[in-house]
Amino acid sequence: MAYPKSFEKCMEGFQKLPGVGLKSAERYAFTMLDCSLQEVQEFAEALLEMKQKIHPCVICGNLTEKEECEICQDSQRDSSTICVVQSARDILAMERTKEYHGVYHVLNGLISASKGILPEDLNLDSLLKRMDGSVREVILATNATVEGETTALYLDKLLSSKGVLVTRIAYGIPIGGHLDYADELTLIKAIEGRKKMD
Amino acid sequence: MAYPKSFEKCMEGFQKLPGVGLKSAERYAFTMLDCSLQEVQEFAEALLEMKQKIHPCVICGNLTEKEECEICQDSQRDSSTICVVQSARDILAMERTKEYHGVYHVLNGLISASKGILPEDLNLDSLLKRMDGSVREVILATNATVEGETTALYLDKLLSSKGVLVTRIAYGIPIGGHLDYADELTLIKAIEGRKKMD
Repeated sequence: MAYPKSFEKCMEGFQKLPGVGLKSAERYAFTMLDCSLQEVQEFAEALLEMKQKIHPCVICGNLTEKEECEICQDSQRDSSTICVVQSARDILAMERTKEYHGVYHVLNGLISASKGILPEDLNLDSLLKRMDGSVREVILATNATVEGETTALYLDKLLSSKGVLVTRIAYGIPIGGHLDYADELTLIKAIEGRKKMD
Repeated sequence: MAYPKSFEKCMEGFQKLPGVGLKSAERYAFTMLDCSLQEVQEFAEALLEMKQKIHPCVICGNLTEKEECEICQDSQRDSSTICVVQSARDILAMERTKEYHGVYHVLNGLISASKGILPEDLNLDSLLKRMDGSVREVILATNATVEGETTALYLDKLLSSKGVLVTRIAYGIPIGGHLDYADELTLIKAIEGRKKMD
């Protein structure tokens, strides 16, 4: 027996989601069948509305339904510090800490030789435009991967000439992490980055 | 920073899916944002179409877009053997084996004291209607859980008086399973159900 056609189409849609294979897609489709028609309608409309309404902030590239995002519009934020991240998802992660009060810049990717992503593919023009003298520090908060490092090195070179302090987030043992589970590179970085005890 | 409203609504929808929490819903919503408008439209339409078109087969309760499901309509299938399952999902699992050639009956649930599900809440009337003398065997293929067992016992009582052979699927060690990982009840059932080697 095959699935009914409309069921299969729905499963195909779910399989586009990251980490969702045939089995999960099947479970998800069954769950949707068990929901009321109203619930499914609301969900379908929410998907479309999100796709149609959300676009990148003209200043930093963060997600927003307006022209400028909530953070860029917030006069309480320290606009002299810009935290550069790979994607808007990283902003949400940073915001959850509630410790950072500067603004952001979303690159929309990382330089990658293997994926053929070049500096010109990133959201850099608007970052350079922001270097109008009002910015004191740029924190490079790309991932600690090869691509993240490459991008950070590139940005450091690009921005240093603009008379701005360029910093990189710290490497080390994650909180709760065990030394014997940490890889060698992380340990080396943790020792290199050691600080005097307060 | 909060998510844009339409993004949050979309996340809420995803969180209705089984096993999907805040983090996964966020990832899924971001994936949808990365898809083209056409892809999102197709997915939203597929959801609605599925919900509107699919309903239970009038005979067995399996999912179908027609009046009777593919299996009930198939004259090649042995309609004298009915395999009783909890949900339409179990039919798909059974069909994947390609070893069963009878027909099915979907209960749409299991008797459960804790969830307050009584025999009258199950799709039983139509099962009894099918006991018109043409059925030779009813295989009880409910889960090997308390609820599955309770339901199987109830069905055995109900159907035995109808002059039909009532059987239960076998319990034992799953293929690839290790004895030292099996629980005691499974081992007891596996020993009880032992067979002469061919």
